[in-house]
Amino acid sequence: MRGPCGSSASHGGPGLTLPSASASPPGESSASPPGESGYEGWLRYRRVPDPAKRALYARWCARVVLPGASDVAQATREELVRGLGGLLGRAPQLSTEPPLEGGYLLASTVSEELGAAALQAAGVAAPSPEGYVVLGPEPPGEGRQLSVVGGDDAGCLYGVFSLLRRLHTGAGWPSGPLVERPALAWRVLDHWDNLDGSVERGYAGRSVFFRGGEVTGDYQRLADYARLLASVGVNTVCPNNVNVGAEAMELLTARHLPGLARLATVFRRYGVRMSLAVGFSSPIVLGGLPTADPLDPGVRRWWAEVASRVYSYIPDMAGFVVKADSELRAGPHSYGRDHAEGANMLAEALAPYGGAVFWRAFVYNCQQDWRDRGTDRAKAAYEEFVPLDGRFAPNVFLQVKQGPMDFQVREPPSPLLGAMPATSELVEVQLTQEYTGQQVHLCYLAPAWKEVLDFPTRGQQGPETVSSLVKGAVGVANVGDEPNWTGHYLAQANLYAFGRLTWCPSSSPEEVAAEWARLSFGGDPAAVSSVTWMLMASRPAYEAYTSPLGLGWMVTPGSHYGPSPDGYEYSRWGTYHYADSHGVGVDRTVAHGSGFAGQYHEPWKSIFEDPATCPEELLLFFHHVAYSHVLSSGRSLVQHIYDSHFEGVQAAEELLARWDALSGRIDAARHEAVRARLVAQLEHAREWRDVVNAYFHRKSGIPDSEGRPLY
Amino acid sequence: MRGPCGSSASHGGPGLTLPSASASPPGESSASPPGESGYEGWLRYRRVPDPAKRALYARWCARVVLPGASDVAQATREELVRGLGGLLGRAPQLSTEPPLEGGYLLASTVSEELGAAALQAAGVAAPSPEGYVVLGPEPPGEGRQLSVVGGDDAGCLYGVFSLLRRLHTGAGWPSGPLVERPALAWRVLDHWDNLDGSVERGYAGRSVFFRGGEVTGDYQRLADYARLLASVGVNTVCPNNVNVGAEAMELLTARHLPGLARLATVFRRYGVRMSLAVGFSSPIVLGGLPTADPLDPGVRRWWAEVASRVYSYIPDMAGFVVKADSELRAGPHSYGRDHAEGANMLAEALAPYGGAVFWRAFVYNCQQDWRDRGTDRAKAAYEEFVPLDGRFAPNVFLQVKQGPMDFQVREPPSPLLGAMPATSELVEVQLTQEYTGQQVHLCYLAPAWKEVLDFPTRGQQGPETVSSLVKGAVGVANVGDEPNWTGHYLAQANLYAFGRLTWCPSSSPEEVAAEWARLSFGGDPAAVSSVTWMLMASRPAYEAYTSPLGLGWMVTPGSHYGPSPDGYEYSRWGTYHYADSHGVGVDRTVAHGSGFAGQYHEPWKSIFEDPATCPEELLLFFHHVAYSHVLSSGRSLVQHIYDSHFEGVQAAEELLARWDALSGRIDAARHEAVRARLVAQLEHAREWRDVVNAYFHRKSGIPDSEGRPLY
Repeated sequence: MRGPCGSSASHGGPGLTLPSASASPPGESSASPPGESGYEGWLRYRRVPDPAKRALYARWCARVVLPGASDVAQATREELVRGLGGLLGRAPQLSTEPPLEGGYLLASTVSEELGAAALQAAGVAAPSPEGYVVLGPEPPGEGRQLSVVGGDDAGCLYGVFSLLRRLHTGAGWPSGPLVERPALAWRVLDHWDNLDGSVERGYAGRSVFFRGGEVTGDYQRLADYARLLASVGVNTVCPNNVNVGAEAMELLTARHLPGLARLATVFRRYGVRMSLAVGFSSPIVLGGLPTADPLDPGVRRWWAEVASRVYSYIPDMAGFVVKADSELRAGPHSYGRDHAEGANMLAEALAPYGGAVFWRAFVYNCQQDWRDRGTDRAKAAYEEFVPLDGRFAPNVFLQVKQGPMDFQVREPPSPLLGAMPATSELVEVQLTQEYTGQQVHLCYLAPAWKEVLDFPTRGQQGPETVSSLVKGAVGVANVGDEPNWTGHYLAQANLYAFGRLTWCPSSSPEEVAAEWARLSFGGDPAAVSSVTWMLMASRPAYEAYTSPLGLGWMVTPGSHYGPSPDGYEYSRWGTYHYADSHGVGVDRTVAHGSGFAGQYHEPWKSIFEDPATCPEELLLFFHHVAYSHVLSSGRSLVQHIYDSHFEGVQAAEELLARWDALSGRIDAARHEAVRARLVAQLEHAREWRDVVNAYFHRKSGIPDSEGRPLY
Repeated sequence: MRGPCGSSASHGGPGLTLPSASASPPGESSASPPGESGYEGWLRYRRVPDPAKRALYARWCARVVLPGASDVAQATREELVRGLGGLLGRAPQLSTEPPLEGGYLLASTVSEELGAAALQAAGVAAPSPEGYVVLGPEPPGEGRQLSVVGGDDAGCLYGVFSLLRRLHTGAGWPSGPLVERPALAWRVLDHWDNLDGSVERGYAGRSVFFRGGEVTGDYQRLADYARLLASVGVNTVCPNNVNVGAEAMELLTARHLPGLARLATVFRRYGVRMSLAVGFSSPIVLGGLPTADPLDPGVRRWWAEVASRVYSYIPDMAGFVVKADSELRAGPHSYGRDHAEGANMLAEALAPYGGAVFWRAFVYNCQQDWRDRGTDRAKAAYEEFVPLDGRFAPNVFLQVKQGPMDFQVREPPSPLLGAMPATSELVEVQLTQEYTGQQVHLCYLAPAWKEVLDFPTRGQQGPETVSSLVKGAVGVANVGDEPNWTGHYLAQANLYAFGRLTWCPSSSPEEVAAEWARLSFGGDPAAVSSVTWMLMASRPAYEAYTSPLGLGWMVTPGSHYGPSPDGYEYSRWGTYHYADSHGVGVDRTVAHGSGFAGQYHEPWKSIFEDPATCPEELLLFFHHVAYSHVLSSGRSLVQHIYDSHFEGVQAAEELLARWDALSGRIDAARHEAVRARLVAQLEHAREWRDVVNAYFHRKSGIPDSEGRPLY
């Protein structure tokens, strides 16, 4: 049984069954070192607590047969030593040929004899590149060979990570063949790292790639990062900020390319390719040309030379990421050209090497006059790009943010996703919590991504969801040089989930959360269920105490942290809520608003257009609504806003309480570090509650129906 | 006739009569170099345009008799060469004895024979230190000797600047003796410059004192700065920021003291002493002591050693400036001590050298909960310091900001000024336009200073004004390394006026503005009257289109530039306006508010307490008022707010129009540079108007009575 990203065995089988409490010790706190930094991430590989299971696994896994000799195969071998050594308490014996007797684990590819034979014996078709098959011993419990067979080296590596994960969680291998392949071809992390080591919108320390204007050389750390990425199937990484300054443009020169090539080598061992963000005006700034006009022959020649140079250092470079004509960055518009002409110029330069152009669709007027209610930023990307459908070269990928605005805690899916049938699209999401609490607040974002991936954007035109229409997903990374990678330890779940969901968008965010919790907090069911509950409760909580009903943008300008209800109201950024003494919200209807709702296919257009059918969590995104308007709960709009903020703080209190209840069940270091953030979150949630409620109280003049303080 | 700062001859005489248009060329544009940078400031010394006047001045001023040999006397001699050389077109002959025949200018002091003789001959008493007498030839037009006699070297220098100013403007010397002395002993400029060269709240480039962590060595520029200061009587300069970080604490060490001593030498030649801002926790940070407790003998010993060291480099150091227990800076409170104990510790260390402690009274709770309406930052300084009256050592000067908040465009005078009869106070004003347009907007601040200096703070207790009660004035400097010193060329008027007003607080700001305009724009009456009008119109305009009626604080947090009506509303800074759907303003009454009004003597207390008698421009500073409240104009409060903003923009338009009308009458370089700022100001004034009006419209729901757009 094969789905787009694996058989039901992979997700519906024993993997979802928690180990019984009696089969595991009361948590791993006693077994874990007290000073855990979180550096290992979810690749913790602690000894399987159940001796019976450990013995069972060891029957096949104490010996590893891995015939491959490539760099990726070598990395796979190392991971098996590390993983099995930890899980079983003893490093496996390694060989390239099966032993004469006894059980063993085969890790191979379809192009190797042993792998091909295993598939043939099981009657299973060859997996595609990056895909893999796991075959349990046949007959079960008796056959000598447990097999992981990849469609290629990367597939084998992914299969090994998959098997290790299953051993780690005690799920073991499935009874039938487990066939997996990634649903999305591009599974990309974009880092917004600057050469000086700062990270734009980074909340986890400094860059892991750059420091003091140079490419860094902390290869051990980078290899460990690559392991984390490969373990969840991420296959592309862009190290540098999409906002490419003059300094970063020099990454394309011989000054930095050797360093980048060393990084690429580190990642390549784990099946991860590198892309690079480039500046559209590089021909001028870097090349000294008088123009960056994409139709200028000299400019095209210059980019061709750049591509030739870059690929001489990094032959498998994935391609170039471009933010053009966006937030004051230069782009083809400066030369009277359109985005297709701009992107195709780069595509032409990269095509000889198989490289791609990742062209961001985040284009809007960031110099808008706030007085002008006729312009709606939400409409911009669709209006800009849809007319260009069919004009992009085949190796151009349009990188579309998940919502029409900018990573607010709640937005509708971007109507641009799936609206360009003749164009390859990628959906861009944000792991780094720019608007969602900056890794001080807990905010598990997989449910938000899932909403977009599952959105049947074509409506009456067809059943396809976004995930079936796009060619991949790009996540803005949430990683820095903090010892635990993400600052907030629980924010690792967002990194984990990004990989798991883009591999298999049909997974449920809760399933992924539980899986991450099991890997990260071991076999204690209380810890796993509490952490899973916390992750799932976190985004609703954040939304409730910040900007419910699709409001958004009530953050402090610049930093994007903390409440400032009018912070973006009189700005040039196109980010308004129009709260006045009567009501609040943006009228984006076709009938009397900006018309944004009209960018959706039916029935979505009609659903969003009508306040009676518009999903309530998006009500104020699509409609300007009177404070007295009665919602489905029977409460008025303004009372709902008040209630939401009070309830959100209660949820933040509950998050802390749940965590506190795990004290002693989780090692003290991780427990204390997470607790400190939950305490800060709670305090800050109260600030959000009181500021936003005071704001609407002072605006509406309407008191809280329960008489709670509104200030 | 002698007033506190000079005879009527100095201010009511020919100095106020503009040269007739026929007697001067049509402006100085033709005579001025086209690329004027503004570096000369008001010491332009262009040739006196009227040949008859020039000949008259030359009869006495072509020869200078200056017997003094001190450094200050030498600087005075240089200034006469520069000034007379420019004004008369020919450098004067110099000697230390009178010539045998012909007219001459004597520049001397009372302690020199020639000076004493001149005073005796005129029957004029000796001027006090820093004072001077100007004696015209006797009999007028016939006597050989024109005299400037100073009470000391500085007085002679001031007298020479005074005479040069009068020749410069064509006023010439008065007919009777001109006797001047400064009304305020301390006339201080505090620079908020950091060692890295940045300037806190600086809008005129980088520091003129520090660069790259070191004391700078641009002595020519510093000497020219000292000349500008001396020309308006400033006698003390503090080069470093009152916020003293660890780096700046090292100014007290042998690493930086030689550099500071060189600066002090440059300034000393112009009668300007140096002070230094020091950090209260220096004994810990710099000295390695375990405490900075002011009563700790080791700490006192440490400060005594510091003083000894500093005075060994700079024997005439004015003293130390201290910001303690203020905005999270350390202070005596950290050790359970009060401000008197903290200040007196330093006073004890400085007393042996005649040094003073400038102790800032800017103390308030900057961690206030915005929900807490019981706390009022406006009350803080008074409550903190008044109970300490009589406890400060004689060489402690309490440095009190002019208003109870923080340099808003409109505040009432601080009730702390004059409230401590047994304590020496200085009034602190701000030249750098932190909240008043940051030297992009034109905002001539002398009228605001004048309001405070003239305020009869003792009310029914006595007629004394603030200026007669304080021992001096401190201005936060508006100068940086911009070629024209202040960025906005017209902002030089604030520097000029600070010196002139603190020398003679009974001057009118308009008179000072006109004097500056004459010096800066020569003999063209149209230019002088337009510039004077512009300066006088500028603060009312800024107030009108930003935050009228005493509102304040509607600026962008952090930068303090541009409109953000709620920017400080939910903050910890104690800066609120409490606008809601019914009204706006802070109730500071005794009857039902914070009680701040009660800090004033009667009748001020009653005047401020009652909205009917409270000056309307301060109405919302003292009262929370309904939007429907009818003002003296017959308009409602909210309509007044709307109107004020529309009128303020009209005033900004008028500023630009007036300036445009001077095109061709002012050299192109200065005209264009100022014009660019006026254009930016106008555009920005419109933004202020529309944002603040939209804010109150959306809050009140009340439309403009004239139907103008409110957004």
